[in-house]
Amino acid sequence: MYRLGVDLGGTNIAVGLVDENMTLVAKKSTPTGAERTGELIVDDIAMLCKAVCEENGVSLSNVACIGIATPGIANTATGVVEYANNLPFKKFPIAELLKARVGVANIKIANDANAAAWGEAVAGAAKGSSNNVMITLGTGVGGGIIIDNKIYAGFNCAGGELGHIVIEVDGVPCSCGRRGCWEAYSSATALIRMTQEKIDECRANGRDTIMFNAEKVSGRTACDAMRAGDAAAKEVYDKYVKYLASGITNIINIFQPEVISLGGGVSNEGQSLIDSILPIVRKEQYGGGIVAMTDIRIAKLGNDAGIIGAAMLG
Amino acid sequence: MYRLGVDLGGTNIAVGLVDENMTLVAKKSTPTGAERTGELIVDDIAMLCKAVCEENGVSLSNVACIGIATPGIANTATGVVEYANNLPFKKFPIAELLKARVGVANIKIANDANAAAWGEAVAGAAKGSSNNVMITLGTGVGGGIIIDNKIYAGFNCAGGELGHIVIEVDGVPCSCGRRGCWEAYSSATALIRMTQEKIDECRANGRDTIMFNAEKVSGRTACDAMRAGDAAAKEVYDKYVKYLASGITNIINIFQPEVISLGGGVSNEGQSLIDSILPIVRKEQYGGGIVAMTDIRIAKLGNDAGIIGAAMLG
Repeated sequence: MYRLGVDLGGTNIAVGLVDENMTLVAKKSTPTGAERTGELIVDDIAMLCKAVCEENGVSLSNVACIGIATPGIANTATGVVEYANNLPFKKFPIAELLKARVGVANIKIANDANAAAWGEAVAGAAKGSSNNVMITLGTGVGGGIIIDNKIYAGFNCAGGELGHIVIEVDGVPCSCGRRGCWEAYSSATALIRMTQEKIDECRANGRDTIMFNAEKVSGRTACDAMRAGDAAAKEVYDKYVKYLASGITNIINIFQPEVISLGGGVSNEGQSLIDSILPIVRKEQYGGGIVAMTDIRIAKLGNDAGIIGAAMLG
Repeated sequence: MYRLGVDLGGTNIAVGLVDENMTLVAKKSTPTGAERTGELIVDDIAMLCKAVCEENGVSLSNVACIGIATPGIANTATGVVEYANNLPFKKFPIAELLKARVGVANIKIANDANAAAWGEAVAGAAKGSSNNVMITLGTGVGGGIIIDNKIYAGFNCAGGELGHIVIEVDGVPCSCGRRGCWEAYSSATALIRMTQEKIDECRANGRDTIMFNAEKVSGRTACDAMRAGDAAAKEVYDKYVKYLASGITNIINIFQPEVISLGGGVSNEGQSLIDSILPIVRKEQYGGGIVAMTDIRIAKLGNDAGIIGAAMLG
């Protein structure tokens, strides 16, 4: 039997065919067209489900279940997306609508960050642990919490918003309406902002930095320049690392998970990012040196975490 | 059958007899004598267990289980206290030692904040919900997390340290070694500090406040003066409420628990404290107005939460 995983984003819909070894054997995608109605979006999800099966010689009757990773608040019990801010979903019965189009009975949904965490938990960096947390350092800071081998999302399915923990009261405005959220300091977006601020500061003060050469400031600009020995870039990186370590220490003090996996664009920095935050985390965390310590790892599944996690929901 | 709950603190040991209705029918206590060896402390726990039974005509053979709420990191699987900073415990097999002294086979242990949360979950303010969080606003800020009707303490039993979430990077020093922990802003100790700072500021600026009349500044000083119309006290209260609301919003964004119960000295302010924080929390929390909202309540069991929760561990 196979499984299908749907990663529904604001920009693209990706559908993957996952085999019994939890391996993604094929995937297809199409633009979301988020300005359209929800029904048209589900039409395209169904089309991709059928196409990826057909192209790989798999009959839909050999698909055990379909999982959908969706933005917003996914009611996992009812298969209804309560709300998503970047898609036209409000109490939208996505599972039921997809079922009517593809005829597969077992359709589960989850929030996209939670599905990605589930993917890393069952088939990625946190495989083998039953309590783990995934942090996605991308446009925002996403969180997914796995407790006792299950996604934890609170009594109303809206929990796990780990990017929206205030770590600086009255701090930088966040997209959620609060000020000082972890997301406003540790997302790729925040790293780009800090980099741009430093470039502007250098320019204003007549201080040289190789970051002036960046055609377009990205999350890599400061990291690359820092590795090339640039002092201003090192200041950006150190500031970013300080806030990231503080937020991760918070997550440890709350959950003491066996594993924290770091995903998203910034995690492409790899082990050197972990090596940068670890001394701070170990010094600041509760129980340091007394109990077994949380292992911090780079996520393994990359952009496929959501697809694989979704497929493994059923 | 009866149960015994032991609340072991740095100052006192209290042992309570709990009946089948989860009602505390009797309790006895004695000073902890924390400067003594662990064995002598367990001798006194055993003595209190026997005495409270004897005085109430209950035979130890009618005691189904004993639970111990202990400071520090309690290994719930082994009954060993890994470490406590205010008691002479380091890998201390407290359950085994107590069993040898009282002959009751079923002895469980938990961290004291977790035991109190469990008490409120099964017999107090959060009764009836299976996902809830207790926050204790006392000398520190304690946390206890209940998920799926079980205490959640992480893979190493050291989790749930909700007071040690940094909410202000580089903020006020905390007893745990970090700076800016929630505890440093929302504990009774923090409220007293803020009150004293305001009194000093008024004195330095020649500003009048009825808080000058306080013989000894307590957690109630600013609250009482604020209710009497004192403007400086209102500033202290508003600042305290702002940080408390921010921390509670963090807890909601993380857990979306069905209930948050507030215990500890500051919670004696009662419903008016909740009425003060609620507008801020509802405005700032994730999912506001879309999904079912966390109910914030004052804890019900007061100082007995730890005893009752401990008794109900087995």
